[in-house]
Amino acid sequence: MARILTLTLNPALDLTVRLAHLEPGEVNRSEALLSHAAGKGVNVAQVLADLGHQLTVSGFLGEDNPQAFEALFAQRGFTDAFIRVPGETRSNIKIAEQDGRVTDINAPGPLVSAQAQQALLDRLVAIAPGHDAVVVAGSLPRGVSPQWLQGLLEHLKNLGLNVALDTSGEALRAGLKAGPWLIKPNTEELAEALDCAVDSPAQQAQAAERLHAQGVEHVVISQGAEGVNWFSPGTALHATPPKVRVASTVGAGDSLLAGMLHGLLRFDVPDTTLRRATAIAAMAVTQIGFGISDDAQLESLQSGVHVRALTEQ
Amino acid sequence: MARILTLTLNPALDLTVRLAHLEPGEVNRSEALLSHAAGKGVNVAQVLADLGHQLTVSGFLGEDNPQAFEALFAQRGFTDAFIRVPGETRSNIKIAEQDGRVTDINAPGPLVSAQAQQALLDRLVAIAPGHDAVVVAGSLPRGVSPQWLQGLLEHLKNLGLNVALDTSGEALRAGLKAGPWLIKPNTEELAEALDCAVDSPAQQAQAAERLHAQGVEHVVISQGAEGVNWFSPGTALHATPPKVRVASTVGAGDSLLAGMLHGLLRFDVPDTTLRRATAIAAMAVTQIGFGISDDAQLESLQSGVHVRALTEQ
Repeated sequence: MARILTLTLNPALDLTVRLAHLEPGEVNRSEALLSHAAGKGVNVAQVLADLGHQLTVSGFLGEDNPQAFEALFAQRGFTDAFIRVPGETRSNIKIAEQDGRVTDINAPGPLVSAQAQQALLDRLVAIAPGHDAVVVAGSLPRGVSPQWLQGLLEHLKNLGLNVALDTSGEALRAGLKAGPWLIKPNTEELAEALDCAVDSPAQQAQAAERLHAQGVEHVVISQGAEGVNWFSPGTALHATPPKVRVASTVGAGDSLLAGMLHGLLRFDVPDTTLRRATAIAAMAVTQIGFGISDDAQLESLQSGVHVRALTEQ
Repeated sequence: MARILTLTLNPALDLTVRLAHLEPGEVNRSEALLSHAAGKGVNVAQVLADLGHQLTVSGFLGEDNPQAFEALFAQRGFTDAFIRVPGETRSNIKIAEQDGRVTDINAPGPLVSAQAQQALLDRLVAIAPGHDAVVVAGSLPRGVSPQWLQGLLEHLKNLGLNVALDTSGEALRAGLKAGPWLIKPNTEELAEALDCAVDSPAQQAQAAERLHAQGVEHVVISQGAEGVNWFSPGTALHATPPKVRVASTVGAGDSLLAGMLHGLLRFDVPDTTLRRATAIAAMAVTQIGFGISDDAQLESLQSGVHVRALTEQ
């Protein structure tokens, strides 16, 4: 069991509404409205907890509606190190219709002040030591610059932590300058951050080499149903997941990241690490939610993952 | 100043999302998401507080998300006598687009157990005495029968309270059997509850006479922009509101009810009572929300209300 800290700078309250058919402009009756605490770092923490690890969760939380988050943290036994900021954590509404159509309405989050950003840095200095790794995942809230993220990552590295980063756009571009231990972009996110094509394994290997030189040890490239490529010095592997029936891809990337961290912190051999992580992500895809509810199913998915060495083509 | 108790058996958390244009099936970005505590009884209480009265609010509240309600009650100085029930108070989502189109998605509320219903009756025995009137407003939650509502109203009458009822359908039909002091249906709601046409003032007067015989002293029939008809023994008045620009009709009926209660509890002359109530409702229509924010505007609206005696036609 490892002690892991996850940071969610821009968490969200997911409100999922199910109804037969959405009629814009009318009064619709929904069957149910479910709200749950979400955000990439919070999701990663839940999968890591399923894998037996001890979690501390932090980031910024709106002080006007922290209840769903606090209830989740209490239920899962997470140590709550979130900085409260004025306002409401953003709510993302998902309207799911019977025919499978999903409409998302995503709201902006609260504005995070310079004081709150400093308060988070101070809190991390106090709590980060003693953790085996830190995951920084998701987008940046209003008020937080990519440069501040870069500083945060450098700060965490200086505290002696393995830093895993999962973000995109300007945040990823700036974050890479800090040389995080692990990144998990998809192909498009990596191409955008590096300003170069990374479609083929050869292009990816070349990009990974540049990143290794910058201090990024693990480059994990998720490619949806096509699988995962993983580059670290001396390792270049591809995993193909088994074919599964897709219920929802929510939390699949977060599951992959949690699985990779789990294997790396246990010092499992690369094949085992990547195989399990790919199976955990596939398991998320078979569910409306995500997480490891069924060990037998996970084992069966794991044996269906195909792992092979990537050789430059 | 009077002491008034309002009961909201099925409150709702209103979530209002504003966005440029709703694209079903896509990821939409909203400008803002506002959540506020709502429900007819809670709305009536707010207008009565604006008019200077002292409020106690009660009903059933889901224990998982009471925060918006508790914050409103604290801010407005309401005495909170809501019974907490397991689950979440229902959320009603309003999606407001730039062109004025509004899409509503209304969720079912929590199931209210027989124990919770008894707990409310017990609470009312303890707190209702000392109040000058009680307002029972809105729909019934799952688990609460129209017959139980009738019993509740009889109970409140037996405690010596003036009972104002604002509901519809089966609940209104059953509630009328308890002979509440005041009702405020619209024409359709009254026709449905009485199983007879009440379109003309003559038909309404006849219906009111039957209701007076059952113990209903005040029959206030709201007819939107056409105005209000008010029948009580010896009084039959019609008020026409001034023409106003409609921003939103949310809370207009609740405002009318609060205004009528205000005049009746002050023993104002009927003309004054109906004129002010009609103006308060018109004021609600000019706002996105409701409430009395501007005394000068209210006075100007009042002088624009036309009140005349209703003679049978």
